[in-house]
Order: sequence, then C-alpha cells, then structure tokens
Amino acid sequence: MKNTFGNNISLTIFGESHGNAIGCVLDGVPAGIKIDEERINKLLSLRRPSGSISTSRREADEYSFQSGVFNGFTTGTPICILIPNKDTRSKDYSEMSCIARPSHADYTAHIKYRGFEDYRGGGHFSGRITAALVAAGGILIPALEKKNIFIGSHIKSIGKVSDRSFENVRADIEKLADMSFAVLDEEKQTEMTNLILAAKNDGDSVGGVVETAVCGIEAGVGEPWFDTLEGLISHAVFSIPAVKGIEFGAGFAITEMRGSEANDSFYSETGRVSTETNNSGGINGGISNGADIIFRTAFKPTPTIAKEQKTINYVNNENAILSAAGRHDPCIVHRARIVVDCVTALVVADALTGKHGADWLAL
Amino acid sequence: MKNTFGNNISLTIFGESHGNAIGCVLDGVPAGIKIDEERINKLLSLRRPSGSISTSRREADEYSFQSGVFNGFTTGTPICILIPNKDTRSKDYSEMSCIARPSHADYTAHIKYRGFEDYRGGGHFSGRITAALVAAGGILIPALEKKNIFIGSHIKSIGKVSDRSFENVRADIEKLADMSFAVLDEEKQTEMTNLILAAKNDGDSVGGVVETAVCGIEAGVGEPWFDTLEGLISHAVFSIPAVKGIEFGAGFAITEMRGSEANDSFYSETGRVSTETNNSGGINGGISNGADIIFRTAFKPTPTIAKEQKTINYVNNENAILSAAGRHDPCIVHRARIVVDCVTALVVADALTGKHGADWLAL
Amino acid sequence: MKNTFGNNISLTIFGESHGNAIGCVLDGVPAGIKIDEERINKLLSLRRPSGSISTSRREADEYSFQSGVFNGFTTGTPICILIPNKDTRSKDYSEMSCIARPSHADYTAHIKYRGFEDYRGGGHFSGRITAALVAAGGILIPALEKKNIFIGSHIKSIGKVSDRSFENVRADIEKLADMSFAVLDEEKQTEMTNLILAAKNDGDSVGGVVETAVCGIEAGVGEPWFDTLEGLISHAVFSIPAVKGIEFGAGFAITEMRGSEANDSFYSETGRVSTETNNSGGINGGISNGADIIFRTAFKPTPTIAKEQKTINYVNNENAILSAAGRHDPCIVHRARIVVDCVTALVVADALTGKHGADWLAL
Amino acid sequence: MKNTFGNNISLTIFGESHGNAIGCVLDGVPAGIKIDEERINKLLSLRRPSGSISTSRREADEYSFQSGVFNGFTTGTPICILIPNKDTRSKDYSEMSCIARPSHADYTAHIKYRGFEDYRGGGHFSGRITAALVAAGGILIPALEKKNIFIGSHIKSIGKVSDRSFENVRADIEKLADMSFAVLDEEKQTEMTNLILAAKNDGDSVGGVVETAVCGIEAGVGEPWFDTLEGLISHAVFSIPAVKGIEFGAGFAITEMRGSEANDSFYSETGRVSTETNNSGGINGGISNGADIIFRTAFKPTPTIAKEQKTINYVNNENAILSAAGRHDPCIVHRARIVVDCVTALVVADALTGKHGADWLAL
Repeated sequence: MKNTFGNNISLTIFGESHGNAIGCVLDGVPAGIKIDEERINKLLSLRRPSGSISTSRREADEYSFQSGVFNGFTTGTPICILIPNKDTRSKDYSEMSCIARPSHADYTAHIKYRGFEDYRGGGHFSGRITAALVAAGGILIPALEKKNIFIGSHIKSIGKVSDRSFENVRADIEKLADMSFAVLDEEKQTEMTNLILAAKNDGDSVGGVVETAVCGIEAGVGEPWFDTLEGLISHAVFSIPAVKGIEFGAGFAITEMRGSEANDSFYSETGRVSTETNNSGGINGGISNGADIIFRTAFKPTPTIAKEQKTINYVNNENAILSAAGRHDPCIVHRARIVVDCVTALVVADALTGKHGADWLAL
Repeated sequence: MKNTFGNNISLTIFGESHGNAIGCVLDGVPAGIKIDEERINKLLSLRRPSGSISTSRREADEYSFQSGVFNGFTTGTPICILIPNKDTRSKDYSEMSCIARPSHADYTAHIKYRGFEDYRGGGHFSGRITAALVAAGGILIPALEKKNIFIGSHIKSIGKVSDRSFENVRADIEKLADMSFAVLDEEKQTEMTNLILAAKNDGDSVGGVVETAVCGIEAGVGEPWFDTLEGLISHAVFSIPAVKGIEFGAGFAITEMRGSEANDSFYSETGRVSTETNNSGGINGGISNGADIIFRTAFKPTPTIAKEQKTINYVNNENAILSAAGRHDPCIVHRARIVVDCVTALVVADALTGKHGADWLAL
Repeated sequence: MKNTFGNNISLTIFGESHGNAIGCVLDGVPAGIKIDEERINKLLSLRRPSGSISTSRREADEYSFQSGVFNGFTTGTPICILIPNKDTRSKDYSEMSCIARPSHADYTAHIKYRGFEDYRGGGHFSGRITAALVAAGGILIPALEKKNIFIGSHIKSIGKVSDRSFENVRADIEKLADMSFAVLDEEKQTEMTNLILAAKNDGDSVGGVVETAVCGIEAGVGEPWFDTLEGLISHAVFSIPAVKGIEFGAGFAITEMRGSEANDSFYSETGRVSTETNNSGGINGGISNGADIIFRTAFKPTPTIAKEQKTINYVNNENAILSAAGRHDPCIVHRARIVVDCVTALVVADALTGKHGADWLAL
Repeated sequence: MKNTFGNNISLTIFGESHGNAIGCVLDGVPAGIKIDEERINKLLSLRRPSGSISTSRREADEYSFQSGVFNGFTTGTPICILIPNKDTRSKDYSEMSCIARPSHADYTAHIKYRGFEDYRGGGHFSGRITAALVAAGGILIPALEKKNIFIGSHIKSIGKVSDRSFENVRADIEKLADMSFAVLDEEKQTEMTNLILAAKNDGDSVGGVVETAVCGIEAGVGEPWFDTLEGLISHAVFSIPAVKGIEFGAGFAITEMRGSEANDSFYSETGRVSTETNNSGGINGGISNGADIIFRTAFKPTPTIAKEQKTINYVNNENAILSAAGRHDPCIVHRARIVVDCVTALVVADALTGKHGADWLAL
C-alpha cells in the first residue's frame, strides 16, 4: 500500500504531472461533514503558483468529487477527488530528455521504473501532485477547526532570512490563513521575495524552512511505539517533494542544551496542566501533552534550475550537460507550507479518529 | 498495529522497564539466516550502560529465542526474542510517585492510559525497551552485510562538541563497529566525555546528534508516496526515546544553499553512475540513488535529572517540586547510536525484501 | 484503510451507483505491463448485464486511465481507473425511499452513515461498483497468464441445477473465457436460464454457486498465520455483494469424510510432486501445494425483488410494505463469476509479488 | 505483517510445537481491563486435549504475561503472553522424517521454508499454536461480555451426526460456556463420541462443523469494502488449522432459495428493528444489522492418522509409504470450537474499537 497513508482516515494519491488528471481517494472520513467548497478553493489557491516568484504554469485546479459526497455532505464512503491537468505543453515532452536533472528524481525514477516512467514534467514526482493532498486537506482542516483544532504554517526562513517564530499560536494561525506569502513578521516578505527573485534572475533557486503549529489537541494522543506523533507526521511530511529534514520543538538546537534547560516544567493553574516552555514541541514519549505541537520542515532549493549543470544521460550512461528549459519555480517554500498543513491535518484527524471513534470528526 | 512496524519484514515490540521481560517478535525474516549469537551479544553490549557516563543499572541482556530459530538458523516463522528484566529494584517503585518528570512521558502516559500505566522505571517508555530492537538488529545487520550493505553511526556531537563527518564511509563504519564510544575523530572522545561527566556532577544531562550511514544500497529503492526512504526511516527513528529531529544529507543546512550549490551533479565512470557531492543523502524523490544514505538524528538531553525541577503531581494536578532519586543516564547518545543502526537495518531490510522478494535476505 | 485491500499490490475502490463515476486505484503493479484494452473490455462485457436474465440498466462501462499508464504500458505508479455512471435515472431517486429492502444494505447503511448515505441505487453497496474491480482485473489477469497462471470460474449451480465440476482445469478455464453464461456442461444453460426467467416472471430472484479454479501456482505461496491463501481469498471474495459462503477443495463435504478418504496422497513422477486427489483445493496449511486451487462461492438470490415484502421505514421505524419498482437482476451469479476471477487475480498477484519481488509480474 | 492480524486491536502470533514456547502479543487493548485468570484457564482447558477422543499429549498451558499487565489490569501497552512447551518428546523428532503427511503442511512448509522449517510436531503449523489465541481470547471475551456481547460455538456436526442449531442464542451460549464437548442437544454427544472413537480405533480421523453465534452487536458495524464482517471473520478463521469452509446465515443453502424466501423481513416493535428470519446471519452489505451473527466453519478430518498412506519423501522426491507413529487427535472439532470463539472475539473487539474509539472496551 505504497501510495496509501493513514490507519483510520487514509489517503491514496495518484496522478502524473502531464497525465489526464491527478487526484486522491480519501477514505475513513465519517458521514455528515459539510463540504466547504470555498475553503477548498482557498487552500488550492494558496498552493497554486502565482506572481513572479513561481513557475509560469497556471492550472485552474478545478477539482471534482467523483464519489463520497452527496447533497453537499460526505457520505462516509471513499471520496475520490479528481483534478484534471490542463496547462500541459505536450510538445515540450514529446520525447524523453534522457538527461537527469541533478538532485531531481529523473534518474531514480528511471532506475526504479525501468524506463516505463511517465517522465513528462516529473511525472508522479511532480509537486503538482500535492494539489490533490490540498483538496483532501480542504475537507479535513475545517472539520478539525470545528473541533477547535487549528493548523497553520509560516515561512520560517528563505535562505538565511528568518521570520519570527510562533508567539500567540492561535492568533498567528488565524493571521496566516489567507496570506499567499505566509510570514508572521510581514517586513520579512520583501527581503525574502528579493532573495527569490535574485535567484531566479541568476537561473537559480533557493530553499527554506516551514514552521507548523497545531493547537487545540488534547493530551494523550499518539503512541510510544511506533506511531509516535513525530513519527507519523514525519512519515507523511517526507513525501512532500524537496523535504530533507524535520524537527520538533527546539529540534536540533535542543542537543546543545542541558536537561535542566531543555526540560519543559509543568505547572497547574486552576486544574489545567501546562508547560512553561515548549522545547518538546507538545510531544512527550510520542504522545501529545496538551501544548501546541510545533515542528519545522527543511525544504531544499528547487532542483530544477536554468543554470547549466553537469550530469549524465541516463539512457546511455554518458556524461552530459544540462541546460534546463521549461517552467520552474525558483522557490517552492511559500507554496509548500499549505501542503504541510494538509498532511498534518491527515495525521491529526487519523490519530484522533483512532482515539475517539470512527464518527468523531463529524459529531 | 501500533507496536508493529514494517511491511515485509516487521517488528512487534513489547515490554516494560520493570516487568517480567522485554522483547520483540521479528516477522518476515526468511528461513535460512544463520544466527550469529556473538554478534547479537556484541551489539547488545554496545547499547548497554557502562562506565561512569551511564546509569548504574546493569542488565545482562540475556536474550533467548522463544520461536523462529531452529538448529542455529531462522525458520522463516516469527522470531520471538525475550530479554528478562533482572536488575529491577522493585522497592524503589512500590508506589506511583505521581510526580511528573518534566519532558518525560510520565504525564502523557498517565493521561493516555488513565492511571493503569506501569509507571515503574518509565514502563513501556523506558529506553530499556530498545534492547529488544538491538537483538532484532543483531539478526538483520549481519544478514545485510552479506549483501554488502553496511550500516553504522557515530556520535556527531555532544552538546557543542562535534566529531568529524563520514569521509570514507565503508571504512568509517568498520572502524565504528566495536567502539563503545563511537567517534570518528577519537580525540573528541575525551572532550565529549568530560562534558557528560560535568553534567552528571551537576545533577544534569546533555544531548547530542547521531550521524548514520548506510552504504551499499543499490539505486531504485523506496517510493515517492508515501513510503519514501526518508519517511520510513524517520517514522522508525522517532520511536527511539529522546529523538526530536532528523535530517538527511545536508539537512537543514541545505535551506541556506542555492540550487546550483545544493544539487548533486551526476557523473559516469566506466558506466557506473555516481554523484559528485551528497547533499541529498543518497535519496532523490524518496528513492535511493546509489550514493551512501546519510542522516542525522537529534537526541535531547536525558529528561531525568537529579536537579530540582518545578512540575506537577499528576494525580491531584497540584504544583510540585521534583528531586529525582534513582539511577539515570547523564547522556544516552553514545548508547542510542546502536539503536539507530538497528531500526535503520529494519527499514532497509524491509524495503529491499519488498523489492527483491521474500527470501532475498537469505539467498 | 477500509476500501483498500492487498499488501504489495493493492486496490482502493470508490464510487456510488448513481454518483459521477465509480473507479479504483490499483497500486503496486510494476512498470512495464502492456495494457490490453480489448481484454479489459471483454471482461467488462462479461460482467455487464445483458439479455432478459439481467437488469435493464445498460452501462457502456467506458473506463479511462487517469494515471499510471503511459504509452500503453503501466508506469509503476498508481493506476486510477474511472468509469462514469451514465444510465442513471435520477428522477427515480429524487428522494430517499426510506423503505428498507429486506436483506439489502439499505438499513445497515442508514444506521452506519447516519442518514448521509448516497441511497440512490444502492450507493456504494451496489453491484455496479464491481465493474471497477473487473477493469483492474483486466490488467492483472493477462499479466498472470504470461506467468502461466490461469484463473477461471463457472456457474456451479443456480438454485438446485448443477453444472459439472472442473475436470481438465486448464482447458476448462480456456473454454469459459468467452462465455457470457459460463457453464462447463452447456446443456445446463437452458435449465438454469429457465429457472432465472421463472423467478423473474414471479417478481422473484434466484441464487447460486460459483466455482473458481486457479492453475499454475507453484507450491509454497501463502502464510500459515494469518495470511493463508484461503483467508486472503475469502476476505476479498466476501466483499462481492451477495456472497454468504466460501469453501475450498471438498469444502463442507469434507466434514463427512474420514481422514483416510479426505487426505490427498502425494506421489512423485519424474521428480514432480502431485496429489492423487484434490480435496484440499490446492492448499495445505494455508500454503499452495502446487495443485489447482479450487473454491466455491455461495451467492444468495438478489435481495431486490418485485414481490411485495414486509419491512420497515427506517426513518420513522414503522412497519411498512415494499413493492420494489425499478430495474433489478433476477440473478447475478452469471455476472458475478467474472468478479470472483478478478478479486482472485488480485490476491494471487499480490501474494506472488510478495514472494518474488516488486517487479515479478512484469518480468 | 504476516503473523499479525487486526487494525485497532491486533494480535501477533509466534511459536512452534516443540520450541521453547508458543505465545502472542495482543496490542491495542485499552488500559484498565481486569484480567480474569480463572476465565483464561477455563478457556485454555476447553481447548486442551482430554479424554480418549484427543491426543495423549498433555500440556499444562501455564501461560504468563511478560508485559502489558500490571496490578491485575491491562496497561494499554502490548500484552505478551507466553506458554512454554513442556510435554515435548524431543527424541521422537531427533531427525526430520522427510515423509510428507498427506494433506498436512509438511510438504508446503518444506517448499516454502526451503528445508529450514522446524519440522518437529508440525512446527508453526501445529494446532498447539492456537493455545496462544485462546489465552488472548481470555482477555477479550470477558471484556466483550461486559459490553453485553456474547460469543459461543457448538459442534454442529461430526461426520454426518448433527446437533440442533441455535435457538435462543443468548441462553444457548451460556449453556455451552463450560461444556468440554459442546453440543446443544446433549443426546448427540454419545453418538458423536462414538463416531470419533470408531475412527480412532481404525487409526483414522473425522471432521465436522462448528457453528458460532455472536449476540449483542449493535447494527452498523463493518464495512462494505473490503472489511466486511464476513471477510474479516473468514480471514481470521481460515488461519485455524484444518478449516476448509465458512458460511454465514443460511450459507450455501441460501443458493437454493428464492429471494422471497431468503430475504429477512424487517419489523419494528416499540421502535426496535428486528428481522423475522436470519438467513443473512446478522450481516447485510458486510455490516451488522443487529440480529445475531451466525456462521459455520468446516473442519476437515485431522490429516495425521495411523493408517498407512501413500505419499512422498520430500527430500529426495521419491514415492514412499507413511505409517504415522506418535500422538494425534482423531478429531479436533470439539477442541477447535473454542479457538473459533477467540478469533471471533478478536475481530469483533477490533471492529467495535474502530467504531467507538481506542478505550471503548475498557469503559
């Protein structure tokens, strides 16, 4: 079950960048969740390339439900979401280039699929596939919000330019909801955008870090072995193209602290238990402790760049030079943050459904 | 299937720190793998606490096979490994302390298991449980080595003291195999040990980073969705107590590079494809590219410390002060590295078995 | 992962009888399998209602690949097959009838999905959904045939009229391949058809038994716990609407034999091991023994009948009388046999892929 | 995950007939279920051979909890149950017989495990392994009873001698609970026992049918695809050695009815929905309808018999004659019925836990 993820609520993803359609099957969602099409479109628009800092490929992302939705509500049976590919320039890909883009999946796909891969536009490895995840997230995120669970991400950094961290998490998430370039300190937007445009002008690309918060999860969700909240989230997040690292709470920085500094002291106020700090990112022993879940995801610079690169022709295995034509993103971090939200929603909805029962999300 | 991990080769873990025994069931291992008891004992000894930088609890880790091994070979049926708990001081735990150790799982376990948790010595959350993983790894690691796949980890850092990175990976792994304090630059051992002892003297603890390498994996292993090699490894690694982050290849640092710098150029030499750099950590699009797989795991400082800490009594939810008595590790990084090797072996053996068939590991 | 089945090759099914489309995602099929559209259409036509012994609903079953197929070959990534619903009479279902058809899933669906079910035409419970299974089978069955594994089913009985059993299994399967009413003893067709028509004339329905054979599977496939070949096949087969029983080899009749009669003696001929009888249906201890796998599936009479029936209104829970209008099948056995073949192909392809590796089916 | 079954509550089984121990890991059971050791022992005793109609091997079945139980209650973490093998006559098996018992798993195991199988006493294929299932059932069955869900089986037939069917299911289950030879019509016991003894005297064996009832399950449990209640139960039940068929409700006999006869009319009495008949065995569309779940399992005659049989030597593939020495059961039906109860309890507890949440069974 390679392309399927989740236990109680699960998602099966399919599609290639230049095939008929991309899509997914979202299963295990209980009957009776109202579909908010506006919200789905909003989320899709936040993932969609726009402006000069994204690829010039423009897809309307006109999703449709093939199943599982009736009279505006989920039916409890699997929801197939289909998003046709429209802005595909087939002539750009009339034949396989055979030139492996460095650090892209061209080569590994060719080895794995033995030459039968749909190589057009990155095929099944294209970031385009994440649109299906976002459409599914558009069902789960509002349903979680009705349960007072809120998920949001911001661009923590582009290159060396950093945004501030979450402070008032609930308010910060609200603020980020509609931003097409999601930063908490809005003054950073220009600086970051300039960095992206400079890379673009050089035929190059930049990466960055996305920071994600989940607030409102009760204590006691997750498992010690093997389905820790960190393990489940990381498993899902690493599927997003270009991710190379993930850290929770203080993350790698915690390794430079002493225990007395790193430990999050508990305190009780009118019977409610909280922690004074949140170096654990809301998770102890794999299980939520009631504090906000905080994690950061490292995105590498887009591997497809215009600059000339040394590489190989993977059909004849000879050395070659690549000058990539076509449409690329000089940076995908600002688009990817919404994808992180959506896979996080899948993990959170799944874990809570396991805890509270199959219909929980709809009740 | 919470405590079970893996698709073709899977591991089910069980046990509590002060229960009868800890252990695991390793399933899907093909018939005909010779059991190397010496190697299993060697690996167990590398995980076992020793010297002044570890807890004073001493367990012999006398494992036994309850099933799945016959005449010195695996039978192809599930292998139950049992390791009795012996050095348990029951009187230390005659009653629940009710005082939550900050950043430990005491509180989250109490919430999740509603007061029925085996609280003695951390119960199912204890690092002791990892001994079972190591015993299982003692079957898989030598079997992988016969397939020319080698796995090894070193202590990349303790606090701010860093070891050098992998250079000649194959030789480095060999060097690390028998080291009880695994550093590549042996001069760092004293510095790191001093750091640990200083923390111990202060009733405190330190954390660090473990760097792991897998060499010898062919290109083409892994899946784009959702079972990327990164996703599978991270899912397993986050189960190891105290892990707060994981990064592959250049990891978080790659977010500060441009694409032209980050991309690993391919080149071909007598038909063999390699990369000039390895910022990808051997993985493109979730799939191995034939280069060494490299990742780093962040371990927080041991949360159990002797220093006084503010916390709560989780039974009456009142604020409390904790002065932890008992035996603790001032650092677990040097012990944990062998556990990282073992869960990595599980993921790698599982993925390759899926690719090459059920008996591959034994042929 | 409710609507997903299979480990290495898996199928996710979706769709409702009167929704946009039905379909499935077939995952884990290796790259490089040639798509035989003619064969898929052939199989779909064998499942499709036709003539006077089936419902008058006529669907063209115009399937399309949304993903996973490129240049006429599988790509190795998930294959989404979509079959639009066209011949739906929406006006027939403008409002929920609220009258539970006895022994149909109307009532259980209403309870499970709390009133949000797509009730039109049986929704997700409709036999129509099996068309998607058949399309998927149209990829797997010819691929298995290239491996010399042949699957075929015949109508063992309709009511009390029985066909002969398999004799020369390989030849029998070939004979059945193109038959729209698949009986081995063709003289039984008229008798069976008359039985169906008589029931139809009475506004009633009949059931029957489908007998399935798989020939060409090597010995050694399957697991003792829990994934016996019998267990896997039965798990899949019970998903087909109207199935109430399954038996392997001599099945229930074996309970009336003594061991000396029931046991299948092995014998060896020029080194090849066979059995003199096949009361085991080709499976010992859950594992194939090299003989033909033989099993029978019991299909109940179609629950939707024209005759007046006592039942309840499941909205107000009052007693009611049902006179079902609309289009129904007086018998589905002759159509269902092809669905049994297809789910069997899924189980067999999955098990062999686990044994021989991910690319086996394409090599 | 071959030897693991279940989604929310899962069981991993291990052990060989003459190894150190057999056992299982029961995972997903919520914290706080009181362990009733007497009940576990009772169930184990009902499965244990006794009297002249069973094998003379006598095992005390002294199970112990290695984990997951603390202070008499489940802890919520995996429960490892270990049952040592004691009455093993190693000398009987000092070397592999190489003679395949017809219709036993000797041959298929030898092929599958390539000669490394633990052949002693049937190894992992031995019915002895089911003792571990029964111990696990001893936790689940009383927990389900507290939820007013009762499971019980009787010997429906031995050879051609039949017991009456369930009538007042709840009372019948109670009656069967303590019977070592479980028949509803006690007059049949002598007749059945005589049949068994006659076969024994002839060095032969007999089979039979077990009929199982589950009462108290609410309507709405199960899935249409693929996890129908029938599919899940059959998947589990076929793991029990010697099972060759399963049927629900009227089963195969329903194929000879017309729809108007087979359909179970619903009726409502003071708001409670029931069915007038139960030909569906309590399941419509894979989902419970609130009626008793009824199914029958066909057990073949024990394949190990004393009578001389033609077979092969599976090492040199030459024809051979087998005269089986050793201890065997002339019939296992009366012992197996308790195993059917226990795997049914696993499926039912798992499905209801998925529906109602992780802690449901303990609340």
